[in-house]
Amino acid sequence: MAKLNESDKTSSGFWVTKEAPIVADNPIATPTAAAPDILRCAYMELVVTDLAASRKFYVDVLGLYVTEEDDTAIYLRSTEEFIHHNLVLRKGPVAAVAAFSYRVRTPEDLDKAVAFYTELGCDVRRNENGFVKGIGDSVRVVDPLGFPYEFFYQTEHVERLAWRYDLHVPGELVRLDHFNQVTPDVPRAVRHYQDLGFRVTEDIQDNDGTVYAAWLRRKPTVHDTAATGGDGPRMHHVAFATHEKHNILAICDKLGSLRLSDHIERGPGRHGVSNAFYLYLRDPDGHRVEIYTQDYYTGDPDNPVVTWDVHDNQRRDWWGTPVVPSWYTEASLVLDLDGNPQPVVARTDASEMAVTIGADGFSYTREGDEEKGFKLGETL
Amino acid sequence: MAKLNESDKTSSGFWVTKEAPIVADNPIATPTAAAPDILRCAYMELVVTDLAASRKFYVDVLGLYVTEEDDTAIYLRSTEEFIHHNLVLRKGPVAAVAAFSYRVRTPEDLDKAVAFYTELGCDVRRNENGFVKGIGDSVRVVDPLGFPYEFFYQTEHVERLAWRYDLHVPGELVRLDHFNQVTPDVPRAVRHYQDLGFRVTEDIQDNDGTVYAAWLRRKPTVHDTAATGGDGPRMHHVAFATHEKHNILAICDKLGSLRLSDHIERGPGRHGVSNAFYLYLRDPDGHRVEIYTQDYYTGDPDNPVVTWDVHDNQRRDWWGTPVVPSWYTEASLVLDLDGNPQPVVARTDASEMAVTIGADGFSYTREGDEEKGFKLGETL
Amino acid sequence: MAKLNESDKTSSGFWVTKEAPIVADNPIATPTAAAPDILRCAYMELVVTDLAASRKFYVDVLGLYVTEEDDTAIYLRSTEEFIHHNLVLRKGPVAAVAAFSYRVRTPEDLDKAVAFYTELGCDVRRNENGFVKGIGDSVRVVDPLGFPYEFFYQTEHVERLAWRYDLHVPGELVRLDHFNQVTPDVPRAVRHYQDLGFRVTEDIQDNDGTVYAAWLRRKPTVHDTAATGGDGPRMHHVAFATHEKHNILAICDKLGSLRLSDHIERGPGRHGVSNAFYLYLRDPDGHRVEIYTQDYYTGDPDNPVVTWDVHDNQRRDWWGTPVVPSWYTEASLVLDLDGNPQPVVARTDASEMAVTIGADGFSYTREGDEEKGFKLGETL
Amino acid sequence: MAKLNESDKTSSGFWVTKEAPIVADNPIATPTAAAPDILRCAYMELVVTDLAASRKFYVDVLGLYVTEEDDTAIYLRSTEEFIHHNLVLRKGPVAAVAAFSYRVRTPEDLDKAVAFYTELGCDVRRNENGFVKGIGDSVRVVDPLGFPYEFFYQTEHVERLAWRYDLHVPGELVRLDHFNQVTPDVPRAVRHYQDLGFRVTEDIQDNDGTVYAAWLRRKPTVHDTAATGGDGPRMHHVAFATHEKHNILAICDKLGSLRLSDHIERGPGRHGVSNAFYLYLRDPDGHRVEIYTQDYYTGDPDNPVVTWDVHDNQRRDWWGTPVVPSWYTEASLVLDLDGNPQPVVARTDASEMAVTIGADGFSYTREGDEEKGFKLGETL
Repeated sequence: MAKLNESDKTSSGFWVTKEAPIVADNPIATPTAAAPDILRCAYMELVVTDLAASRKFYVDVLGLYVTEEDDTAIYLRSTEEFIHHNLVLRKGPVAAVAAFSYRVRTPEDLDKAVAFYTELGCDVRRNENGFVKGIGDSVRVVDPLGFPYEFFYQTEHVERLAWRYDLHVPGELVRLDHFNQVTPDVPRAVRHYQDLGFRVTEDIQDNDGTVYAAWLRRKPTVHDTAATGGDGPRMHHVAFATHEKHNILAICDKLGSLRLSDHIERGPGRHGVSNAFYLYLRDPDGHRVEIYTQDYYTGDPDNPVVTWDVHDNQRRDWWGTPVVPSWYTEASLVLDLDGNPQPVVARTDASEMAVTIGADGFSYTREGDEEKGFKLGETL
Repeated sequence: MAKLNESDKTSSGFWVTKEAPIVADNPIATPTAAAPDILRCAYMELVVTDLAASRKFYVDVLGLYVTEEDDTAIYLRSTEEFIHHNLVLRKGPVAAVAAFSYRVRTPEDLDKAVAFYTELGCDVRRNENGFVKGIGDSVRVVDPLGFPYEFFYQTEHVERLAWRYDLHVPGELVRLDHFNQVTPDVPRAVRHYQDLGFRVTEDIQDNDGTVYAAWLRRKPTVHDTAATGGDGPRMHHVAFATHEKHNILAICDKLGSLRLSDHIERGPGRHGVSNAFYLYLRDPDGHRVEIYTQDYYTGDPDNPVVTWDVHDNQRRDWWGTPVVPSWYTEASLVLDLDGNPQPVVARTDASEMAVTIGADGFSYTREGDEEKGFKLGETL
Repeated sequence: MAKLNESDKTSSGFWVTKEAPIVADNPIATPTAAAPDILRCAYMELVVTDLAASRKFYVDVLGLYVTEEDDTAIYLRSTEEFIHHNLVLRKGPVAAVAAFSYRVRTPEDLDKAVAFYTELGCDVRRNENGFVKGIGDSVRVVDPLGFPYEFFYQTEHVERLAWRYDLHVPGELVRLDHFNQVTPDVPRAVRHYQDLGFRVTEDIQDNDGTVYAAWLRRKPTVHDTAATGGDGPRMHHVAFATHEKHNILAICDKLGSLRLSDHIERGPGRHGVSNAFYLYLRDPDGHRVEIYTQDYYTGDPDNPVVTWDVHDNQRRDWWGTPVVPSWYTEASLVLDLDGNPQPVVARTDASEMAVTIGADGFSYTREGDEEKGFKLGETL
Repeated sequence: MAKLNESDKTSSGFWVTKEAPIVADNPIATPTAAAPDILRCAYMELVVTDLAASRKFYVDVLGLYVTEEDDTAIYLRSTEEFIHHNLVLRKGPVAAVAAFSYRVRTPEDLDKAVAFYTELGCDVRRNENGFVKGIGDSVRVVDPLGFPYEFFYQTEHVERLAWRYDLHVPGELVRLDHFNQVTPDVPRAVRHYQDLGFRVTEDIQDNDGTVYAAWLRRKPTVHDTAATGGDGPRMHHVAFATHEKHNILAICDKLGSLRLSDHIERGPGRHGVSNAFYLYLRDPDGHRVEIYTQDYYTGDPDNPVVTWDVHDNQRRDWWGTPVVPSWYTEASLVLDLDGNPQPVVARTDASEMAVTIGADGFSYTREGDEEKGFKLGETL
């Protein structure tokens, strides 16, 4: 923001620029090998400690469709999906994320993935039969930021249930929308994911140039993944889309009826960033799931990049509703390729929670106002 | 609740009884004179300190329709209304409520109102020309609880704008729904309003028999007014209805766009009590306005009365979202018939905030759980 | 309309008057006995020829809740109902309506009903144990217009499922809203139902004074029943309410998925009359069911009566979508108290279909236009 | 369909295949020059005969935003757009389409466009300053099917109004979604547009191999354009997207209030093809505008292609509502690069209207049923 012009400020209170206004001080080297051509985030593999409890949450409560299941894993998909799954629940001893999996455009992109990450010195493994059911030839790596990434093209096609309204529930989840990753150094993560072909759509900064979070996309939505500043590598959330806002409200209503309302962590609300309507849930292991709808098209190469002031208290919730502290501090472990949790490195840059709602934090609703910490009326 | 049977507990976690389960220890005498036949809450007269600022809020932001206005007062109505107004904004030195106004069934009911309140020893005034524009013969009283109540039948008819979709905004307010009054002794208030012909639809209690709030209706919705325990007499809120939930979300979105999101105090959310979807706003003077939709029909004489445990944290928000403290503590002054603020008497019964989120408070999501104070994840 | 003043015409193209502008040339005598105090339409008893097929339609497709069932009858209720049922499906040889049942305010109103109809010379039968399960002391009559009417107060209370969002479907039906009766002489029917305590809220007329339909209410919605001009006595439809418009669209979507879309007869659309959003279905026996939402409050005694010009083609659908001919011509038989179909008497007044879309019919979108028959673009 | 396997039939009644199941008998030659890389449909230039009447329709009724305007042209955009416009209304003597304009990925793609169409022998013109305001270097051609196509990259950026909820109307149009072109030989058109880089997502066929319509996309929605069989070249419609279904209903409601409901030609309804919710309007010149929401993601290269049986009466409306005849027969003229209307060539293949609702037509709701012509209940 320090480098942004007042003339680039919009009537909505944020800035737009043509290029991602983020520079990494400590960049990961850009490989000479070409990056694989990623289509979209495709599925997450979650390790859960109680498969039955997780099944109840994702199938009975959220209504995801079971493509296949056995005693150790459940393969789930959203309504409009035609690939085998968008979520794998695998029983394991420690709740964690085993893979952030992306679909690539062609089988040949797997060779590119191998070359790209090998050059970066990463742990790279390829399995022609896939690491999970329903997926063929795949590459898994621990990326330079410590995240277990997967790339695949081959997959079993299953029936899109978009027209099966007889099966739909009031809170129908229609698509996997995005991942969100916690990482200590956001500019470093952004730079690396740009090398992998992602484009920045929005970010949060302050006047000193600290970057608190950035959103990155391949498919033309606001993101396929995001980098959230914090102790990492950890998984912040996985997000599914609904068609309409009332579908999200229906999930809250149903959780209330089942006396499971304590699974609701934050929201529902309207994001400033992305302009989407949102809800954050926590699954039985504490994995965070976002329900999300109605962001905007970002597919043009000159799509304006939106930058928010970290002190704008409408950036994370357009209605000014305070972010709950746990949302800033809690996240899921991620695993290496042997299934061991990755060590978590502390963030050294300023924390968004500290600068906005903590001891010295402040935020404003209207520029010029100075309002400290929690919103008026929120504290005893 | 102490007196309620477990067999009367529903699968949703509250109790139902056939009679209002509230007894006043210190009742106001029941007049021998018959009560006027009240149709519905009809309008509130609000004193505001900056008429232009209030006009901006109620007309430009909320979209209420101006029936008539001059330098000292603005008369506003909702979309489906055919009487002259549902809200009067009158310029004055101290923000307060000048009248909770109810429409009665016949002109003759005004005579009944005079007799009823005269017998109670109240200040009773009648104005054949009405106390405000658009309303004819009216009776105003300071009721035994200290509230300025009005009764009228005669009113100018104006056009219902229900079919004028060309004028409607995304957050269209279609009806005045109810009032809410803060009073120190809820059972005493309930007993008195039952004498006036109101019926209890829902209430909040604890095992010791303390009553924290009760909802009372004439028209067949959950309420025309409610008694909320607290220092009083004060006005807690006035509520307008929308048709759908997205209309309420649209109001929040618009407030964000206008950088007025700090007018949002609580919600949007789903009430436990009433099952309605809600939002609480604060107007430029701090008067609280609720936007409300989709409660249920209560018009049968044996309509089941719903009783909630004060420790059930889904009673006020079905999704378990904490009530913000200001919602419990802040309210508007009310005026006597000479325009002087009524003195506020402290509540001596337990406070709902104290027993649920304060130092010794607790609430539960599922019976058997014990969860203290604020919801997990909400505090630093 | 001939008698209506241009000054009473609204900006929306209809007229409003203070009194129902309908006079019967051939009125049924007004009993000296007082009418029972009707609360609301409460349930319809439908005779169906294939109970399993009807159960599939009302339970599996529409999602009504089964309170009780056996081999010969199924008792169904809507989400917010606390009385035993809103619909009885009874197996029988001929599809027909056995009862239009209304709830009255007190047990004593049954005595009034007996006296009222006895004075009118009707077949009157009383059953202390109720004619159907879940209902106590009841009176059934064949009313002077030939319809089987029932009145009751006693009923078993069942759990309101309003808070049971875990059970709700996307097209949730939350309340019984109204009945609609086909009768040859609308003014005669209106006059009689006014004697029974109903009030007119809207009607359709022409300049010659012919009345094509009228809407009548007890509870403060647009109607508990309506009189539709046509060969009768027949049952035009029974209507259930949803909370939002998308709930109605979801029913259409589900019918499509089940390849049952030919159960959709008309709509979805927006009514002119009532301003409600609507859909008409036909059940497996051809009984017509309306799904309806968002009409307006009518509970004030001086509620403005709305009169529509029969030639206004937005009267029945605000968007000008043509009414399908079957909607005008088809309806269900009604039974006498011995279970025999009532003979159908032909309408002699002009038919709404003939004057609007038939050979000589015409309608207009804007006054002054003259547009004949079907909407442009609708015919080959 | 003749060539489709029963095993490829889904539970929803259509077929899915991996490749577009359409072969052209009389193909246009595939150029050796590479096709330009099209991002998306970007804007349509419409010639209108009464600029003020068109402005009223598109701005006052539909709520599109005016980026710029003068005496001869109005430049309009949708809420989420950041390029200069999505629609140009230009005053002219004959209502017609002057350009279907697509945005390309890079400035260099314009050179490719020139080479591609030059090789095809088309009229090709390039204007470095753009043919309309707000657009830079552009190429316009009359394509081999007779349509005026434009390609551009350079454009002025304007503010995205997505966050400006204070400006939004109940029927907010958020994006340009697609074009639809009428052409006599659908397979020939499909083959040519595949050469231009489009991919088929859905089509309508019969057992004899006749193709009635096909949907083609660049951006990952169901289409950027579609080829509809009929006398052509003509423009069938241009479509804008809303966020939710109630936004579309609000447009109908508003048209009713303005007594402009005769601008509604077909719908609202649910498409079978695309699964989107839709409405068709006709502007003051008869140009058809679709309002559309909630189709599905199609961006994977192996996205399943959906084929519908022309006799499936849920293909065009999932609820079985008949298509109105004018929708099949009427369309807008298109212009050559000198502004002269292109001659219209008659379709020789079977017409969809004839085979489904005409003299010999039939369609079915459930396979095995045989239902002729119009839906039951629809005809006098």
